[in-house]
Amino acid sequence: MDNLIAQYFPDFACAGIAAGIKDNGKHDLGLLYLNDCQAAAAVFTQHTLPAPSVLISKQHINTCIPKAVIVNSGCANACLGDLGMADAQHMIATVAAHLGIEKESVLIAQTGMIGSRLDRKTVDAGLAEICAAVHNKAQDWTGFARSILTTDLSEKLSAQKFGKTGIVMGVTKGAGMIAPNMATTLSFLVTNMQIQSDLLQQCLQKAINNTYNKCSVDTDTSTNDMVVILSSGTEKADRADFEAALTACCYDLMSQLLKDAEGAKKMIVARVYSAASERAANKMARSVVDSPLVKSMVAGEMLNWGRLLMAIGKVDEPLNLENISLYIQDVCILEKGQEIAASTADFSADTLYIDIHVGMGEASGVAYGCDMHEAYATINKDKS
Amino acid sequence: MDNLIAQYFPDFACAGIAAGIKDNGKHDLGLLYLNDCQAAAAVFTQHTLPAPSVLISKQHINTCIPKAVIVNSGCANACLGDLGMADAQHMIATVAAHLGIEKESVLIAQTGMIGSRLDRKTVDAGLAEICAAVHNKAQDWTGFARSILTTDLSEKLSAQKFGKTGIVMGVTKGAGMIAPNMATTLSFLVTNMQIQSDLLQQCLQKAINNTYNKCSVDTDTSTNDMVVILSSGTEKADRADFEAALTACCYDLMSQLLKDAEGAKKMIVARVYSAASERAANKMARSVVDSPLVKSMVAGEMLNWGRLLMAIGKVDEPLNLENISLYIQDVCILEKGQEIAASTADFSADTLYIDIHVGMGEASGVAYGCDMHEAYATINKDKS
Repeated sequence: MDNLIAQYFPDFACAGIAAGIKDNGKHDLGLLYLNDCQAAAAVFTQHTLPAPSVLISKQHINTCIPKAVIVNSGCANACLGDLGMADAQHMIATVAAHLGIEKESVLIAQTGMIGSRLDRKTVDAGLAEICAAVHNKAQDWTGFARSILTTDLSEKLSAQKFGKTGIVMGVTKGAGMIAPNMATTLSFLVTNMQIQSDLLQQCLQKAINNTYNKCSVDTDTSTNDMVVILSSGTEKADRADFEAALTACCYDLMSQLLKDAEGAKKMIVARVYSAASERAANKMARSVVDSPLVKSMVAGEMLNWGRLLMAIGKVDEPLNLENISLYIQDVCILEKGQEIAASTADFSADTLYIDIHVGMGEASGVAYGCDMHEAYATINKDKS
Repeated sequence: MDNLIAQYFPDFACAGIAAGIKDNGKHDLGLLYLNDCQAAAAVFTQHTLPAPSVLISKQHINTCIPKAVIVNSGCANACLGDLGMADAQHMIATVAAHLGIEKESVLIAQTGMIGSRLDRKTVDAGLAEICAAVHNKAQDWTGFARSILTTDLSEKLSAQKFGKTGIVMGVTKGAGMIAPNMATTLSFLVTNMQIQSDLLQQCLQKAINNTYNKCSVDTDTSTNDMVVILSSGTEKADRADFEAALTACCYDLMSQLLKDAEGAKKMIVARVYSAASERAANKMARSVVDSPLVKSMVAGEMLNWGRLLMAIGKVDEPLNLENISLYIQDVCILEKGQEIAASTADFSADTLYIDIHVGMGEASGVAYGCDMHEAYATINKDKS
């Protein structure tokens, strides 16, 4: 991926370092710098106690086209009142000073434990180091991807091409607290698509609505989530092609995060067909991927189709058993309410497709989730 | 407890046996028989695919005052279409014939795996045995309590006295799939309160609204849940006293089930104060007990108050950090948005009280839940 960055974005600098914000020596500070950024867009968490990073980045992206994004993991810097706001503003000002750009052209994203403070000395030393790296035109995209990880094990990167020489590249992190409503985990995208910021915002929102916004790890929502896309604007291409590539990139990143989400091993794709309305279909699909009993069943790789009916029936949408057909990996398990004799489901793939036809109308919906193992509790019993 | 049954309900027979419905030799069939039942009431699951047991019992209790309740665990007999309905009707008819009463005066409750069929031969032999036992005036209340258990480890019983010689006694089971909306787990209550069925229904609904309906194990909802109360009607007492005893009995049973729910060890009581509305307060309290990250934190016995703010902030109700104060076991952790220095939380008790003052109004709310350990996944990876 680093080769692609060098090839498609010669003027884009990026880096990730271990600044000591995390106490385990892992990467925890990342910086993106696109001085000639032509367009940008972002979506943010809907949490009612948004972190300073969310408040500041929202304001800045509405003021001008950003040139840099500073990100740290290991500390969410959230729910700290004025102290947290001051720390985030300090990081922005420091980066702006190092890079010689306006404060308003710097965005900030932070992730980690809510309520813990950043150590300024550690952060200042890290910012000096990482700004020097991008000043020297570092193109360590993989290192940047590593710097945003929390409990997930490996960096998540994707690249999708479109048109003649168009490209969308992105990174994300997987973890809990991913049950967004018009927002998502942390994810950063770059493209060379020539497009205005307001149109880019529409494209991003559409891509997010069809991917991250239909995805849930544990029903919890972060105070800090955001997705940011920056464009160098060097590629003229058809907008539909770009949209398709952007959506494919988000989908690929989403599937990577679902397979590395707090002990999860499999992605679950729940599709509901022939529902009375799209809303009902999406609600039922979401109920399937959110159900701890379904998630445990997938982890256990044992068919228990009753739990799938339980999940679609617990949301308040009318159902008739005799209309319901159920498929796992395209194998029919239940046909019009009748169990198919000797039906077996193959759970071996790392993506499990659950298709449910409810026979109440013509609308369909989808949701993405993951399985739940003992590791979910083990990881989250830990303080951070 | 069996002594109390004998003392207060001389004409009430009850039994629980291992009929072989479960393949592990544990109790799986229970019967209550109160031939002179004077009043009865019940609440049922709101699942959109209710089991035959729910449909039949709803119909029967609307037809006449029941005299008997037959219950099996080890098989929910749900989502099986006409076959399941026929099996449930067969059980009702068999019990009615053995006891020499009308079919309509028999209620039925079933719990276990959805989609698995009952073996008629096994059930018939069990019904003959258990009907003979109650015919011989068995008063094995503990055995009955044992017969309704699913994955929980020990029987749950409670007795609450009121007035001069009034009593409410109850049993319940703990397990997943407990996130009711005007319904609950399986629970069976007997009282000697002299009361009409319609008033008893009001009292039961009120008690359930304040206990089981505010309780959630894993956000999943059963197709089979119900609470039934039968009254011998021999005790004249003040209705307020009876209501208090009934609520106390349900609360006691609820707290027992939360401490024995799929690997759970602690009950969580989340109380939200000074909210803008009761609805908002209850929504935020529920969000706290439903959050997998909060549940894991309680299991890990490590304070991470950010997760509590995360949980109240993910439901769409306005909040201001500077208004929020947070207490764990009456110790202030956060005061008006500021962390209390060196604050520590004691997680050692088996009931954890989390009190959150949001400072947006004057309404309050409560929700009851439990912690989540690795055992939740281990238990539910298993097929049943």
